[in-house]
Amino acid sequence: MSAIPYNLSLIGIGTGNPKHLTLEAVEALNAVDLILIPNKGAGKDDLAALRQAICAEVIRAPGPQIVEFDLPTRDEATRDYHTRVDDWHDAIAAIWWDSMTQALPAGGTVGFLVWGDPSLYDSTMRIADRLHQRGDIAVNVIPGITSIQALTAAHTEPLNQINAAVTITTGRQLRDHGWPATADTVVVMLDGQCSFQTLPPQGIQIWWTAYAGMTNEISISGPLSEVTEKITTTRARARADHGWLMDIYMLRRSAP
Amino acid sequence: MSAIPYNLSLIGIGTGNPKHLTLEAVEALNAVDLILIPNKGAGKDDLAALRQAICAEVIRAPGPQIVEFDLPTRDEATRDYHTRVDDWHDAIAAIWWDSMTQALPAGGTVGFLVWGDPSLYDSTMRIADRLHQRGDIAVNVIPGITSIQALTAAHTEPLNQINAAVTITTGRQLRDHGWPATADTVVVMLDGQCSFQTLPPQGIQIWWTAYAGMTNEISISGPLSEVTEKITTTRARARADHGWLMDIYMLRRSAP
Ligand SMILES: C[S@@+](CC[C@H](N)C(=O)[O-])C[C@H]1O[C@@H](n2cnc3c(N)ncnc32)[C@H](O)[C@@H]1O
Ligand SMILES: C[S@@+](CC[C@H](N)C(=O)[O-])C[C@H]1O[C@@H](n2cnc3c(N)ncnc32)[C@H](O)[C@@H]1O
Repeated sequence: MSAIPYNLSLIGIGTGNPKHLTLEAVEALNAVDLILIPNKGAGKDDLAALRQAICAEVIRAPGPQIVEFDLPTRDEATRDYHTRVDDWHDAIAAIWWDSMTQALPAGGTVGFLVWGDPSLYDSTMRIADRLHQRGDIAVNVIPGITSIQALTAAHTEPLNQINAAVTITTGRQLRDHGWPATADTVVVMLDGQCSFQTLPPQGIQIWWTAYAGMTNEISISGPLSEVTEKITTTRARARADHGWLMDIYMLRRSAP
Repeated sequence: MSAIPYNLSLIGIGTGNPKHLTLEAVEALNAVDLILIPNKGAGKDDLAALRQAICAEVIRAPGPQIVEFDLPTRDEATRDYHTRVDDWHDAIAAIWWDSMTQALPAGGTVGFLVWGDPSLYDSTMRIADRLHQRGDIAVNVIPGITSIQALTAAHTEPLNQINAAVTITTGRQLRDHGWPATADTVVVMLDGQCSFQTLPPQGIQIWWTAYAGMTNEISISGPLSEVTEKITTTRARARADHGWLMDIYMLRRSAP
């Protein structure tokens, strides 16, 4: 284990609107010695370019060194989902370590631009954790605007009803387990399949947004029974036009 | 109904750390004609002072007019909780309207500094909604860092487990209904009574933070069975020392 000290700042950058950046995030991006930016390969999405654009916009010269690295791909031969993800995180941690130690052999501070907030359906903290076994690593988190907030802002709609609970879940969970037992408001993320279609639509309202916070933001809301088709066709068209798409939605059941 | 147009910006300011402000929030605070700041009366908390300090820090001269107004008190004689809250929101909307029309008789843009994010356990959107019956009102929301994110950042701890759901709820809900049926992670807000004490503590981890994001932030985490007393005594002491306290916590059940 190396004794050279590194400090990793996991910096939430919001959901694609450069103005989502907080003053704390701007300060951190300027203060680190090195910024590591993952490159998913051409055509997947333009998030590496967006991260570079954010850096160009808020970093004052000379600014930190910026290094792009190629994200490894998950090994689809590994059957078990959790093992596959674990192995993938190990591989990313190894690349981080190599990039850090090469760019900063004497140690220093490294910044990562994390989409949205680092705590929400993001693996950056879990990957950073793996570095403790390699060296003297400190990790800190700088919160960022989440896609949940970009969604509710787009619709000017509160997340919760008065004094009531909210469940945040994934498309896969919604498909596998249906409407979460005690919830009246549900936010669904990581859903590539419009999984709301698997619910009986009666009595459910939906607020749906793609590219939340971005210039090409699209929002549709209404009774699920009436807007399902509008959402699925709009989504398919937008995905074809842009080559990639991120969407999120909130569902609410009327009090019975 | 008046035809004079007003645009209300509900601006999320984060949870007490002036650096939680986003670039979008700073821009909005500088762009509005009028900022309305609620004053809860001396001794309750120092949030009006904090809002004034945030304005002083980020607004460039001459900047918008800033007007403080006295928040009405809830009428405790009204038995029903929802009616009481409804009446109170009506009273606040009336004060907003009077303050706006007095300061900007020809219409204009009005900014409200909303604690955390406007979508999360906050009544500002519901109060703004009431103004549609009085005049030509447009409302927009600018997202801000929530206390949930300040909590997870304080502990460098992800909100969700991989692909798993998260429930956000209130102290009252936790007391009345216990652990939410399908959840493995629960975030509890609006809890004046350390309601986690009503749960059987076995197998539950807690991450607790008071004054999250602020200079006097206090965090405690560990197995609920071991840290309950430390949290309750720390909380009581901090509350006595500062005269007010805001706290939030996350609970997670180990897989059985
Ligand atoms: C890997 S998660 C990352 C979430 C992120 N950490 C956050 O705080 O929002 C990706 C999911 O977040 C949601 N998401 C992120 N950015 C979005 C955007 N700009 N518009 C709509 N959904 C978005 C989508 O549901 C997407 O599948
Ligand atoms: C009326 S709600 C407002 C929440 C706010 N809109 C947000 O986005 O965090 C107030 C509750 O939020 C939580 N809270 C807000 N600010 C906090 C802070 N700085 N530290 C800890 N908890 C906080 C507490 O649970 C408190 O009871």
